[in-house]
Amino acid sequence: MPAPIDFYFDFSSPYGYLASTRIDALAARFGRSVEWRPFLLGVAFKVSGAQALTTLPPIKADYFKRDFLRSARMLGVPFKLPEKFPFLAVQASRAFYWLDERDPGQAKALAQALFHAALAEGRDVSGAEAVADIAVTLGLDRTAVLAGINDPAVKEKLRSEVEAGLARGVFGSPFFFIDGEPFWGSDRLPMVERWLETGGW
Amino acid sequence: MPAPIDFYFDFSSPYGYLASTRIDALAARFGRSVEWRPFLLGVAFKVSGAQALTTLPPIKADYFKRDFLRSARMLGVPFKLPEKFPFLAVQASRAFYWLDERDPGQAKALAQALFHAALAEGRDVSGAEAVADIAVTLGLDRTAVLAGINDPAVKEKLRSEVEAGLARGVFGSPFFFIDGEPFWGSDRLPMVERWLETGGW
Repeated sequence: MPAPIDFYFDFSSPYGYLASTRIDALAARFGRSVEWRPFLLGVAFKVSGAQALTTLPPIKADYFKRDFLRSARMLGVPFKLPEKFPFLAVQASRAFYWLDERDPGQAKALAQALFHAALAEGRDVSGAEAVADIAVTLGLDRTAVLAGINDPAVKEKLRSEVEAGLARGVFGSPFFFIDGEPFWGSDRLPMVERWLETGGW
Repeated sequence: MPAPIDFYFDFSSPYGYLASTRIDALAARFGRSVEWRPFLLGVAFKVSGAQALTTLPPIKADYFKRDFLRSARMLGVPFKLPEKFPFLAVQASRAFYWLDERDPGQAKALAQALFHAALAEGRDVSGAEAVADIAVTLGLDRTAVLAGINDPAVKEKLRSEVEAGLARGVFGSPFFFIDGEPFWGSDRLPMVERWLETGGW
């Protein structure tokens, strides 16, 4: 069995969302699974010196807003930026890691639902209650989800995942590793595909 | 006749170089010509707040150095970073605009030769004499090239092209416009291709 592809992303990242709609099917064509790893881009940005969209000068921010929509339309994926953007994905990421220890398949379904709510419907999913609202639609228990989000072990798990990502060189979203090879950006998916086809070059 | 594609780039930009090896053939398949427009990324970076590779933190600089080589190998294009990188492309850009007013076809050939020297062979092409060395290999007269580089009208032409690019929203290299639609990055070439095929979406 070839090793899984590691997929780092921030729930607040439009390009992470776009990649999330494609990466599992792409990987499966080459017999690969995908490990989803929510990550906090704000922490990475402090290290890399990058800026969130809202603090970018208009010449760049305007381009990105246009490109989000254009890229989503090209993929046939619904897209809507929430009013509060970028948003803090700490609670969503904790809920993911809490569930991932119990049921990885469900955790991926939750991640997809969170991405869809935030970036296809433009809903605010930054709060724990909003995350729980989405979790219950998947049949999860609200009280258990909220307890999971507040569990110190889960908080520590997110911190250690973010640290591990930084240590591996993750500085943006989406960010992939295939057998250790790093790929940044949803526009790198054609290169990811070629890499999987050829085994690298 | 459909309108030409505008292709903005900095001679010091690896992704600009990679795109330069592809854009004319791609455009020609859709009956389009390409207007090459050398640009000074340093000026754009002051506006956009972006950083040159050498001032990026290692987590990002290491990734880009790897991605330059990997992207070039994927395209089957020779690549070598010059020791002095990024370099100031003012003289190269002036030589281009001087020649472009006289012979646009020759100006494009000069641009290709400059890119090749700088980023396939890793030569220092930042100085006027180095630019002239390359120009003479195309049959151009050294004295005329050096006079052109120093012509106040040519200097003004470069300034006005950079200003015009900024006014249109150019903040990186390569940067394309197709019928007014902006595209940033060599990894946008598949999207550029789709745009030309479909007329946009």
